Amino acid sequence: MKNPFFDNKGPFEIKNILSLISSSKTYSEYFGSVIDVKDLVSAEEDCITFFHSKKYKKLALSTKASFCITTDALKNDLPTYCKPIIVDNVLIATAKITEKFYPNSVIDNFDQKTINIENSFFKDNVRYGKNVLIGENVKIGKNCFIGHNSIIEKNVQIGDNCSIGSNSIIRNSLIKNNVNILDNCVIGKKGFGFFLNSSKNIKYPHIGIVVIGENSEIGCGATIDRGSMSNTIIGKNTYLDNQIHIAHNVKIGDNSIIAGQVGIAGSTIIGNNVKIGGQAGISGHLKIGNNVEIAGGSGVIKNISDNSKVMGYPAKNIREFLRENK
Amino acid sequence: MKNPFFDNKGPFEIKNILSLISSSKTYSEYFGSVIDVKDLVSAEEDCITFFHSKKYKKLALSTKASFCITTDALKNDLPTYCKPIIVDNVLIATAKITEKFYPNSVIDNFDQKTINIENSFFKDNVRYGKNVLIGENVKIGKNCFIGHNSIIEKNVQIGDNCSIGSNSIIRNSLIKNNVNILDNCVIGKKGFGFFLNSSKNIKYPHIGIVVIGENSEIGCGATIDRGSMSNTIIGKNTYLDNQIHIAHNVKIGDNSIIAGQVGIAGSTIIGNNVKIGGQAGISGHLKIGNNVEIAGGSGVIKNISDNSKVMGYPAKNIREFLRENK
Amino acid sequence: MKNPFFDNKGPFEIKNILSLISSSKTYSEYFGSVIDVKDLVSAEEDCITFFHSKKYKKLALSTKASFCITTDALKNDLPTYCKPIIVDNVLIATAKITEKFYPNSVIDNFDQKTINIENSFFKDNVRYGKNVLIGENVKIGKNCFIGHNSIIEKNVQIGDNCSIGSNSIIRNSLIKNNVNILDNCVIGKKGFGFFLNSSKNIKYPHIGIVVIGENSEIGCGATIDRGSMSNTIIGKNTYLDNQIHIAHNVKIGDNSIIAGQVGIAGSTIIGNNVKIGGQAGISGHLKIGNNVEIAGGSGVIKNISDNSKVMGYPAKNIREFLRENK
Repeated sequence: MKNPFFDNKGPFEIKNILSLISSSKTYSEYFGSVIDVKDLVSAEEDCITFFHSKKYKKLALSTKASFCITTDALKNDLPTYCKPIIVDNVLIATAKITEKFYPNSVIDNFDQKTINIENSFFKDNVRYGKNVLIGENVKIGKNCFIGHNSIIEKNVQIGDNCSIGSNSIIRNSLIKNNVNILDNCVIGKKGFGFFLNSSKNIKYPHIGIVVIGENSEIGCGATIDRGSMSNTIIGKNTYLDNQIHIAHNVKIGDNSIIAGQVGIAGSTIIGNNVKIGGQAGISGHLKIGNNVEIAGGSGVIKNISDNSKVMGYPAKNIREFLRENK
Repeated sequence: MKNPFFDNKGPFEIKNILSLISSSKTYSEYFGSVIDVKDLVSAEEDCITFFHSKKYKKLALSTKASFCITTDALKNDLPTYCKPIIVDNVLIATAKITEKFYPNSVIDNFDQKTINIENSFFKDNVRYGKNVLIGENVKIGKNCFIGHNSIIEKNVQIGDNCSIGSNSIIRNSLIKNNVNILDNCVIGKKGFGFFLNSSKNIKYPHIGIVVIGENSEIGCGATIDRGSMSNTIIGKNTYLDNQIHIAHNVKIGDNSIIAGQVGIAGSTIIGNNVKIGGQAGISGHLKIGNNVEIAGGSGVIKNISDNSKVMGYPAKNIREFLRENK
Repeated sequence: MKNPFFDNKGPFEIKNILSLISSSKTYSEYFGSVIDVKDLVSAEEDCITFFHSKKYKKLALSTKASFCITTDALKNDLPTYCKPIIVDNVLIATAKITEKFYPNSVIDNFDQKTINIENSFFKDNVRYGKNVLIGENVKIGKNCFIGHNSIIEKNVQIGDNCSIGSNSIIRNSLIKNNVNILDNCVIGKKGFGFFLNSSKNIKYPHIGIVVIGENSEIGCGATIDRGSMSNTIIGKNTYLDNQIHIAHNVKIGDNSIIAGQVGIAGSTIIGNNVKIGGQAGISGHLKIGNNVEIAGGSGVIKNISDNSKVMGYPAKNIREFLRENK
């Protein structure tokens, strides 16, 4: 699938891509044109992908990519048609390549091309407040409200019957039908992803978007960052209270409830019918099952299986926690 | 007392109210006009009230309401003049009835009737920034400041000598004299109250307001939600630091100090002279006494009696906690 | 050094300063003019300083101040040329004197003197959004971006190549080169400092500023309060994620990473190369060394030495914590 929102500046010759990265080899035998940079699963022929951890061995074996940034230790797990490019740091090399394809995905300066909604196509179709700004490539459905001072930057699709509050900022997002986003939210900015570097860190491109499912509600002061290579997803009929932070690549299922001031770190996946109490925190790269209940104030640092109820820091079975902490 | 801010669309005939809810009985013998929906204590003759838990038995016995939504198990605790209406889920039925009386209390779309303060009555009496908006039914006292881009939506009373920061949004609130509300706050939006429903949750009406007592200060980025059936109250000379979340129906006493990023869940009642350290969280429906000190980072899940000092998660006596956690 | 941003209304005769405070003595033998109020270290001749705790005995011994607010118990640790002024509460007396020198540092009403950037000197040198406001005494370097609705209040210097997001408010701050400040931030407001008083607390003046070092990034929804007597400092190439609260006088070193929803209480000093996980909280007046790692959700209540890795509440050695909490 073509990235719906970020403009792909490719294709690029592989030799131009190789010149971006420092590899111990020159790969003068590699040639051809590269159309996109994608993860192991979504990469297609003529794409370049990346493979940096044994964890992803199975996915590497079946990637369709023509080229892969990887390490000497991992290169043999790639299919024969996928040409390895050996580097010291796979993620930094991938960041540089992604930036070449998607130069607008690294820095989120404010959108200079917004116009007042009064001067836009939407002026007769949307109920809007004072000083509402609309960027390029924006779609808004029927019967929507957009509050005062809210900014719908470029690359946003809003469904029918949505209500956006005041002072909110949305970019690079797909908002389905019947969604409420309350006041002072920032939805779709780049995630907190970068590589440490002594005097100036290297920012990671974020070419994913934020998707918010139908009938959901996002409370005041939320920050929901867009994904780096995949999307950040909030399911259907899922309600977020105030002051919640959802990091890049997080996926939350349907019919879930998340109370105030919860924070969910990057790339964690949360099931359906999950209830998370206020101020709970969930570490990154975890898997939280369906029907899980996490007590307020808990700190989750491990995967949680379906139907569990947990509490504490680190979070454990709630009965056990309460017995131990009478 | 008449609700000062939400327009009561009643009275309604009891038969019209009964048609909203699914009850196993028809109550064809009930008749008459219902003027309002209120809790057990504040309900008067010709009001309808609700009674859903044994906890409230004492209050039920002395309610003045003429009708009461309740369950078969509880109905006998009502006075004889208060006619029971038996339902499976008291709170859902009450939500539906409340919405009928107060249809504008369920959804908080932005206030479409605000005007720029320059075009309002207040232009000569208030010192205001750029792009300040004022809704209907707003009163502002002497010697007040309202910062840039702030929005005073409908149903707000602000006393004398108050300072509202920039980018703040206030609605359905009563702000007493000498109050400071800093930047980026959202005061008076509906609480996070709803009933789970498989594909689309049912939102609970919020007909309470936010009351902020004199000489108090609210830090940047606060969210203070208005009450559902009662009010959310911040006492006098009580100071809130930045990024605090106060949920619906919370009541905080006088002369209290609440440090940054604290969260207080719905319907908790906090006494006077209370000190709460940064990032502490307090569960809902608790009672915290006077002169209580809660250490930063604590998670309070039980009532706390007067003059206690607590720490930990779950919070316990601070000396005990520190002894056990050297 | 002269305070760069707050206008010093002095000098004042010492007898006028003495009339502000209630002291058991009259000090009719004291005379002369006082040019400024400063802490023990930065005070120079003809300044007044304050000394309220044995902890600062060494600093007191070498202060250059001509006058010092202190207690009877501490007065003998001052140099002979520094004349003691004995009071019951040193900090309240100091607050009153500081307010006399810097009356504009106590209350942060919105800046009434801002103008739209379109009418300012910066209109040709800065890329700016709609409704951007600029106060007095603002400098902005080359190649900067300022997003929609952002307010650069008085006393702000912004370096080259900086990007300020939308809906952010900055005052009393020094932003070095290549800094990104994202959306909805409040930088430079007064800290949460005051003295309890039965019906109306006494606010503490804040004459420090916020300094943000080059190449740093501040995430959405941050609140960074300016210092009271010293500055709040964020080092170089230090990255803050979303919804972070940094209290007054905090100093954070270079090359550090602070994840979402972290809170750091007043006057804590943090070294270089520090990593702090999401939702961690750090108490006030602590010293956190270089190369420290603090796990997400931790609550730090003691100093931490260089190169430590800690976790838990209260935070302890991470291995010990994980062994005890399997």
